[in-house]
Amino acid sequence: MPQRVRIVEVGPRDGLQNESAQVPTAAKIELIDRLSATGLQTIEATSFVSPKWVPQLADAAEVYAGIERRPGVAYPVLVPNLQGYERTRAVGATEVAVFTAASEAFNRRNTNAGIDESLARFAPVLERARADGVRVRGYVSTVLGCPYQGEVPLADVVRVARALHAMGCYEVSLGDTIGVGTPGKARTMLRAVAMEVPMPALAVHFHDTWGQALANVLACLEEGVAVVDSAVAGAGGCPYAKGASGNVASEDVVYMLHGLGIDTGIDLDRLADTGRWLAALLGRDTGSKAGKALAAAG
Amino acid sequence: MPQRVRIVEVGPRDGLQNESAQVPTAAKIELIDRLSATGLQTIEATSFVSPKWVPQLADAAEVYAGIERRPGVAYPVLVPNLQGYERTRAVGATEVAVFTAASEAFNRRNTNAGIDESLARFAPVLERARADGVRVRGYVSTVLGCPYQGEVPLADVVRVARALHAMGCYEVSLGDTIGVGTPGKARTMLRAVAMEVPMPALAVHFHDTWGQALANVLACLEEGVAVVDSAVAGAGGCPYAKGASGNVASEDVVYMLHGLGIDTGIDLDRLADTGRWLAALLGRDTGSKAGKALAAAG
Repeated sequence: MPQRVRIVEVGPRDGLQNESAQVPTAAKIELIDRLSATGLQTIEATSFVSPKWVPQLADAAEVYAGIERRPGVAYPVLVPNLQGYERTRAVGATEVAVFTAASEAFNRRNTNAGIDESLARFAPVLERARADGVRVRGYVSTVLGCPYQGEVPLADVVRVARALHAMGCYEVSLGDTIGVGTPGKARTMLRAVAMEVPMPALAVHFHDTWGQALANVLACLEEGVAVVDSAVAGAGGCPYAKGASGNVASEDVVYMLHGLGIDTGIDLDRLADTGRWLAALLGRDTGSKAGKALAAAG
Repeated sequence: MPQRVRIVEVGPRDGLQNESAQVPTAAKIELIDRLSATGLQTIEATSFVSPKWVPQLADAAEVYAGIERRPGVAYPVLVPNLQGYERTRAVGATEVAVFTAASEAFNRRNTNAGIDESLARFAPVLERARADGVRVRGYVSTVLGCPYQGEVPLADVVRVARALHAMGCYEVSLGDTIGVGTPGKARTMLRAVAMEVPMPALAVHFHDTWGQALANVLACLEEGVAVVDSAVAGAGGCPYAKGASGNVASEDVVYMLHGLGIDTGIDLDRLADTGRWLAALLGRDTGSKAGKALAAAG
């Protein structure tokens, strides 16, 4: 297991994008600034995908312009194509993220393009980013199952992850978008990808739809992964399962990591405070059990 | 990892005992009968601890007399002492469970007796049970932490587990009563106990107070444990952390086990149906994410 794990906090993007509550721009900025003060090194700030697709994050430019950008903290933003990339440059982003599914059916439904077409769209983004000195993170979604095609062949996951890495993504995050995976399958998937993409360039991204996320994280840590995506308060949801849980809660991941003797650099109390603040803002219970337990402990 | 795991369903006892809703006797009977039809082999039915301590289960005798006792399914009941044991005999129980903490402070607060005093109280229970052909299960609580004394020395856990096994308990369940454990600590604890009590005679029992339960189960499966306690719908709570989650949800455990290719003999759909039925009865959301996801999947 790694001695140190970097958490990629995706609450402000993957979390809020799937929450039904409307969060004011000022609150999004406050959320990111609070997260910046916890010791997190990477906070995915927002998405420059068209507001037609992601209305929750229509204020991406205002949010990005408003946050305090702490030295040592990266604030990647999601971009769908070169046009989106250019909008992020206008606000001074120094890290972006691109995404495609491992499932052809999912990618077509979600982005109106085949996987190869998506990859082709990212080529100029990566080229421009290289010239600009901007780092690019890659996401592969539906790595353990797809709501449309069901099973996703392992070979497709490996192919897409390898392509993103070969194009220049410094890190590839492997996402179980619908949270159906179990630890053995997560482990096998990660191991297969790691034969083509070096483990230090891989991250895992689990949703807790079926309650398996933390167990899956554990299995992947045992395989050597050292970067974990998660969302404070377990923010988010699943558009494919009404009422489902969202991303694995950052607080629960950090509590586990610290218990395992793995360093994260994160102040769990501050993180949990932020999680409860966010939950109150969203008008619901926190999705983090560690956050709840910390509150009960006073 | 084991090829087959036996789930010990503790919802009707450990679950209901810690739920604030009053459940009518007939509903408790229906709960157990429904669980009996899922393929579960062990269902802890109720507790003959004094109603002064456990008012939720004051109707233990009526419940036990009312359930359908399926061949091949064991229905243990919790007993605090010989007097409790005799009450279970009057209703024809063929399996009982005794309990003590690994934390001296917890045991004194919870049972008004030191650990050695508790063990001494169980000696005649085990003696009588042996003569009666009744099987006895032993619980060790607070194996990874105590709400009063904090840390619980590993040596104390090992000593108590060994004592219960030596007295004749056919199985010893190791319980993280306050759900503070993380996978590395759970693994180390189990490994230490397994040096004194054979692994096939051990079970693990996790509460999800800090969101760690399923990851802890996974770590213990990797150590070879093949018996897991859990509660349908994640029933229960934690008297030491207001608003906290209860036992790890049986549905989530079974979903993980089946995903790992481990046989349980349980029909997950039926189990999840029962979990949602119970949650409705308790007037709250199910505590099982797999149960929720199955409902969303239609």
